[in-house]
Amino acid sequence: MEESFVPLRGIKNDIHGRLMCYRQDWTGGFRAGIRILAPTTYIFFASAIPVISFGEQLERNTDGVLTAVQTLASTALCGIIHSILGGQPLLILGVAEPTVLMYTFMFNFAKDRPDLGRRLFLAWTGWVCVWTAILLFLLAILGACSIINRFTRIAGELFGLLIAMLFMQQAIKGLVDEFRVSGRENTKASELIPSWRFANGMFAIVLSFGLLLTALWSRKARSWRYGAGWLRGFITDYGVPLMVLVWTGVSYIPYGSVPKGIPRRLFSPNPWSPGAYDNWTVIKDMPNVPLLYIIGAFIPATMIAVLYYFDHSVASQLAQQKEFNLRKPPSFHYDLLLLGFLTLLCGLIGIPPANGVIPQSPMHTKSLATLKHQLLHNRLVATARQRMSQNASLSQLYGSMQDAYQQMQTPLIYQQQSVKGLNELKDSTVQMASSMGNIDVPVDETIFDTEKEIDNLLPIEVKEQRLSNLLQAMMVGACVAAMPLLKKIPTSVLWGYFAFMAIESLPGNQFWERILLLFTAPSRRYKVSEAYQTTVPFKAIAMFTLFQTTYLLACFGITWIPIAGVLFPLMIMLLIPVRQYILPKLFKSAHLTDLDAAEYEESLDIPFIATQDIDVALGHIQSAEILDNIVTRSRGEIKRLNSPKITSSGGTPVAELKGIRSPCISEKAYSPRVTELRHDHSPIGGRGSPRTGETRPSKLGERSTPK
Amino acid sequence: MEESFVPLRGIKNDIHGRLMCYRQDWTGGFRAGIRILAPTTYIFFASAIPVISFGEQLERNTDGVLTAVQTLASTALCGIIHSILGGQPLLILGVAEPTVLMYTFMFNFAKDRPDLGRRLFLAWTGWVCVWTAILLFLLAILGACSIINRFTRIAGELFGLLIAMLFMQQAIKGLVDEFRVSGRENTKASELIPSWRFANGMFAIVLSFGLLLTALWSRKARSWRYGAGWLRGFITDYGVPLMVLVWTGVSYIPYGSVPKGIPRRLFSPNPWSPGAYDNWTVIKDMPNVPLLYIIGAFIPATMIAVLYYFDHSVASQLAQQKEFNLRKPPSFHYDLLLLGFLTLLCGLIGIPPANGVIPQSPMHTKSLATLKHQLLHNRLVATARQRMSQNASLSQLYGSMQDAYQQMQTPLIYQQQSVKGLNELKDSTVQMASSMGNIDVPVDETIFDTEKEIDNLLPIEVKEQRLSNLLQAMMVGACVAAMPLLKKIPTSVLWGYFAFMAIESLPGNQFWERILLLFTAPSRRYKVSEAYQTTVPFKAIAMFTLFQTTYLLACFGITWIPIAGVLFPLMIMLLIPVRQYILPKLFKSAHLTDLDAAEYEESLDIPFIATQDIDVALGHIQSAEILDNIVTRSRGEIKRLNSPKITSSGGTPVAELKGIRSPCISEKAYSPRVTELRHDHSPIGGRGSPRTGETRPSKLGERSTPK
Repeated sequence: MEESFVPLRGIKNDIHGRLMCYRQDWTGGFRAGIRILAPTTYIFFASAIPVISFGEQLERNTDGVLTAVQTLASTALCGIIHSILGGQPLLILGVAEPTVLMYTFMFNFAKDRPDLGRRLFLAWTGWVCVWTAILLFLLAILGACSIINRFTRIAGELFGLLIAMLFMQQAIKGLVDEFRVSGRENTKASELIPSWRFANGMFAIVLSFGLLLTALWSRKARSWRYGAGWLRGFITDYGVPLMVLVWTGVSYIPYGSVPKGIPRRLFSPNPWSPGAYDNWTVIKDMPNVPLLYIIGAFIPATMIAVLYYFDHSVASQLAQQKEFNLRKPPSFHYDLLLLGFLTLLCGLIGIPPANGVIPQSPMHTKSLATLKHQLLHNRLVATARQRMSQNASLSQLYGSMQDAYQQMQTPLIYQQQSVKGLNELKDSTVQMASSMGNIDVPVDETIFDTEKEIDNLLPIEVKEQRLSNLLQAMMVGACVAAMPLLKKIPTSVLWGYFAFMAIESLPGNQFWERILLLFTAPSRRYKVSEAYQTTVPFKAIAMFTLFQTTYLLACFGITWIPIAGVLFPLMIMLLIPVRQYILPKLFKSAHLTDLDAAEYEESLDIPFIATQDIDVALGHIQSAEILDNIVTRSRGEIKRLNSPKITSSGGTPVAELKGIRSPCISEKAYSPRVTELRHDHSPIGGRGSPRTGETRPSKLGERSTPK
Repeated sequence: MEESFVPLRGIKNDIHGRLMCYRQDWTGGFRAGIRILAPTTYIFFASAIPVISFGEQLERNTDGVLTAVQTLASTALCGIIHSILGGQPLLILGVAEPTVLMYTFMFNFAKDRPDLGRRLFLAWTGWVCVWTAILLFLLAILGACSIINRFTRIAGELFGLLIAMLFMQQAIKGLVDEFRVSGRENTKASELIPSWRFANGMFAIVLSFGLLLTALWSRKARSWRYGAGWLRGFITDYGVPLMVLVWTGVSYIPYGSVPKGIPRRLFSPNPWSPGAYDNWTVIKDMPNVPLLYIIGAFIPATMIAVLYYFDHSVASQLAQQKEFNLRKPPSFHYDLLLLGFLTLLCGLIGIPPANGVIPQSPMHTKSLATLKHQLLHNRLVATARQRMSQNASLSQLYGSMQDAYQQMQTPLIYQQQSVKGLNELKDSTVQMASSMGNIDVPVDETIFDTEKEIDNLLPIEVKEQRLSNLLQAMMVGACVAAMPLLKKIPTSVLWGYFAFMAIESLPGNQFWERILLLFTAPSRRYKVSEAYQTTVPFKAIAMFTLFQTTYLLACFGITWIPIAGVLFPLMIMLLIPVRQYILPKLFKSAHLTDLDAAEYEESLDIPFIATQDIDVALGHIQSAEILDNIVTRSRGEIKRLNSPKITSSGGTPVAELKGIRSPCISEKAYSPRVTELRHDHSPIGGRGSPRTGETRPSKLGERSTPK
C-alpha cells in the first residue's frame, strides 16, 4: 500500500475491492454448512469470556453504572454491524481492556465533579465518543491507514506478545485473588473465614489449570492416535467450549458442607431487572453536560482515537498476515470509518465502544484456515480413495485430485492464483514416483498415504466469509439474555481461559519463536526452521531479540502506571521511527530486512516506475506472480520454498532489467502485508509441514481487478 | 531353560554362570563413574516411597507393632545382601503390598488369641517365616523355577498391568482420603472442620497432579528443544526426586492462617525412640509360642511361599526381558534360595520380609539401559565429531566408531555377540550413501546428523552391574535415620508418585499397547508398530486382548476380597494351564505364537535333535547367530527387522533341512526369556527409533560358555 493521503481515496478503494466479493462472502459462508459452527463457537468463547470479565471489572470500577450487560451488548451490536457492513470480515470486534481502563479513568474524573458526577457520567462519555468518532472520521478520510505498512512485523508481533502478557497477567492476578477476600461478597460471612478462602483458592487452582491443560490438549485432538475420526474432529472443533462446560460441571461436584459461594462464580446483574436499561436513553441527558466538559471531552477523545486507530488497524493486519494466503482485499480505511460510526452509536446509547481485538482476530483467521483445510482435505481424500478403488495410477490420481481442488476454488473474478500449489507438489511427487518406477501402476495406501500426502499437498487457505463473524456476534448478544446461565461459570475457569488465550496466541509469532531460539541448545538450533537462520548470524538474531524483549518489557512496565498506562500503544507506535532511523544504525540492513521484512524499505533505493510500464512490459498476464516472485526472492525467502514457477516467458528478465525489486513502488500497487517473511511454523494448530511454494500476490490490484 | 527337576542342578548352573561375571559386575559399575547415581536415585525413590507408604499402612493395621522403620529396614537389609550375594543384580527387593496384606491378616488372627496376642505376634510371624523359608528352599532345590518359561508373556504382562492398577488404585484412594478425616489426627480439632478438610483435599489434588505431571514431563527432558544439554540431561536423570523436593517445597508456601496439619504429611515414629527396637530381639520370644501355633504357622507360610515364588520369579523375569539384550545369565533358582535365607533372617529379627518387586525391577533395568546408551552415545559422538573434523569419509567414520564401540564392550569371556548391530547399520547406511555417490567425500553434520544417526545405530544394551542396586539399598537404609526429614513430604506428593509409577510401567507392555490398539482409529492402526500386526488379523488381536482384559479385571476384583485377595497371584498362575490347554482351542496356533510367544511350545511338533549334532553341522562358529536367526524368523519377526546377516555359509540350509525351529529342544539350550517378541516401542524412555536387527542369543550356553 503506498502512502497516499489523497482524501477519501483509501476508503473508495476499500469499498470497491470488498464490494466485488461481498456476495461471495455470504454464499461461501453458507456453503460451508454446519462446519462453520466450529470456528464460530471457538471465536464466540474467545470473544465473550474476556468481555464478560472486562464487564465485571468495569462494574467494580464504575460503581455499577456499566456492567457486563453493556460490554456484551456493545460487542454484539458492533460485531453484527461490522460483520454485515464492515470491510474485512475476519476482524473481530469487542470491548477491550484499554477501553475499560479509559472508562475507569473517566469515571474517577467525573464522579468527584459536582456538575457532572455519577449521574451525568454516561452523558459525558457520550460527548467523548462524539469527539472520538470525529477524529476517527478524519483519520479514515485522510488516509492515515496508508502508513500501515510502516507498522512492520516488529511492531505487530511485539503488540501481540504484549497482549498475551496482559492476558496471562490477568489470569495470574485472578487466580491469586481467589485466595483473597473478594470485595463483593462481604455479606456472606461463612465464605470469608480463612479456611474457606484457602479452600476456594486451591479449588480455583484445580479448576483453572484443569481448564487450561485440557483445552490445550483438546486442540490437538485431531492428530491423536486413539478414538474414531469423527470424535477427534469434534473434540478439536468444540473442545474448548466443551471443557468450559466440563470444568463448570466439576465445580458443582463438592456438595454437602461446602458453602454455595465456593468456588466463586461470575457475578453480573440480571439483565431483566428494570434498572439495567438506564444507559440506553443517555442521549436525552447529553445536552445537560456543561459546555466546558463538552469541550474538555476532546482530551480523552484524542487518546481513545489514537488507541483505536492503532488497535483496530493492527488487529486487522494480524488477521491478514501474509502466511494466511488471503485472496480477498483488505479494507483498513473503510473499517476505520465504520469504527467511527460505531463509536458514535455506542456513545449515544451509553455503552462502551468496541474495536478490533487481539488475539481474537488472528485466532479467527486461523480457525477459518483450519476449516478450509478440512473441507479441502475431506474432498480430496474422498476423491483419492475413490480413484484408488478404481485402480488409478499416480498420475490419474493427481489429475482427479486437481479437478476436485479446482472445483472447490471459489469462482471469483478477482482470483488469480489457480492451483499452483497442488501442481508443484504433484510434479515433484510424480517425478519421484517415476524414478522409483511405479508411475503407471495402480496406487494403494502403501504407496500413497492418502491422509498424510494430501495434508502435505494443501496450501494454507482461509475460508473468507462473513457468516462466522455474524453468528459469533449474535451469540454474544444472546449471552445478555443468558446471563443467569453464565453466572454458573466459576471465575477460576475464566482465569484458566485467559491463560489458554495467551498461550494460543504464541505459535506463529516470530518474535516469540526467536525468544525460544535463545534458549535452544546450540546443537539443536538448526531444528528451528526460520527462514533467516541461514542468512543472519545467530549473534545478530540474539541482539535483535534482546532489543525487542527489552522494548516489550518497557511497554509492559508502562501498563502498570495508573493513568498513563492506557497509552501503551503509543510506545509501540514509537517503534516506527525507532525501526526506521535507529535500528538501521545497529544492524546490517540485510539482516534487518530478513528479521523484520518491511515493504516500504525496498523502495528506498529504486527509481519510481509506473505500474503501467510494468504491466505493458510483462504483458499483463501473470505479472502478479512474477512480481511476487521478485519480492519473495529479494527477501531471501526463496531458499526455503519451492521456487514458484514463472510461466510468462520473458517476465523475469524484463523485470530484472528495469531493476524492479518490489511492486510497492508503483502507483497502483499497494500491499498491506507487513509480515512478509514466511515461516515454517504454520500458524494453524496441528499442521507443521512445510507449505508449498505458493506465494500470495502482494498487489491488491491483481487480486481485485478483473482481467 | 529346559524343565529339569534334578535337585540342585538349577542352583549350581546359576552360581556357575553368575560367578563368571561377578568381578565384572563390580568393576563395570565403578567404571560408569558418577553417572551411576542417576539410575540409583531413580530406583531409590521408586523403592523407598512405596515402602514408606506400606509401612504407614502396616502401622495402622498392626496397632503400631510394625512401622515404616521396619519396612525400610527390611528393604535395605535384603537389598544390600541381595546386591552383594544375589544372582541377578537387576532384581530390586522390597516389602510389597501382598506382604503387608498377609501381615495384616496374621495380626487380626493373632491379636484375639489369648495365648498369642499382640505380645507374641512377632514371634509367631517368626515361625511363619521359618516355614516359608523351608518351603522356598525346597522349591529352589527341586528346580521349581525351571517352569519359568511356562510363565508366558501373557502372564507376566497381565501381572505387570495388575500391579500398575493397584498402584493407581492406591493413588486414587489416597487422594480421596485427603478429603476425609484421617484416623490419626483425631486430636487436632482445627484441621478437622469441614472447611479445612476440603482445603486439604484440594491442596492434595494440586500437589499430587503437580508431581505427576512434572515428573512425567521431566522424564522426557533429554529430547527437549530448549535448554543446555547438561541441564536437560540432569533433569531427565534426577527430575523425579527433584520434583518430589519441589512439590514438598510448594507445600510449605501457604503460611499464616493455614494450620500446620495442612497439607497432611508422612507420619512415622521416631526411629531413635527406645520403643522402636522391640522387634529386633524377637527370637528370644519364639520358644514361648504354643506348639499348636508353631504348626499352624505352616498354613500362612504356604501362601506366602507360593506368593514369593511367583512374585520373585516374575519380577526377575520382567527385569530380564528379551528386548533388553542382556549379556549376563539369569539366576532364578539361586535367587529363590537366597530369598529363603532372607525370609528366615527377617523372621528372626521380627521385620516383614522383602521380595522381588514390580514395577521397580523392570524400571531398574530400563534406567540402566538408558545409562549404557548415554555412555555409548557420548563416546561415539565424540569419536564421530573428532573424525569429521579430520575430514574423514563415511566409511572411515564408521570404522572409527566401530573401534570405539568395541572398546566400550565389556571384555567378558562369556560374551559372544560382537558389534553386529553397529555393523549392520553401517552396511546399510554406507550402501545408501554410496548410491548417492558420497561415500568417499568428507562427511559433515549435514550428511551425518551425528546425534540422531548414532542414536539410531546403538542397540539396546544394559549396564549390568551390582553397584546401583547396592547403593539404592544403602540409601533406603539411610532413610531410617532420615525419618524426621522424610516426614516433611506431604502424603499427597506420595499419591502423585504412585500414579507416576503406574504410568511409567506401561510403555513397553504389549498387553497395554494392544488395549490402546483397540481404541485406535482403523485408519491409524498401521501406525502402531507391533510385529504381529501383519500376521494376525485384527479380530484375533481384539479377541485375545478382550480375553486378557477380562482376566485382568477378574484378578483385580479378587484383590478386593478381604482375605482371599492376597492370593491373586494364584489367579495368574492359573493362566499357565489356561494358556496351554484352553487358549489353543480358541485361537489359531500361529496367531497365538505371534501374540504370546512361548518358547516351550516350539518343541511340541519337532523331533529331538541333540545340540551336539547342530554344533557339528554348523561348525560351532556362529551357531548362536544362526539359531537365533531361525528362532526369529519362525516368530514372524523378520519382517520388521533388518534381516540378520548369516555369515556361516552352510548354516541355514542345514538347519532348515533338519527342520529345526528352535534351539530350545536341545539338552544344553535353556533360555529363560519368555518374552520373545521384539517390539518397536522401545522400553527406554525417549528412544523410539527402531532397533537394529541384532537379536539376542536365546541359548544361555552361548552366553556363558567360553569358546
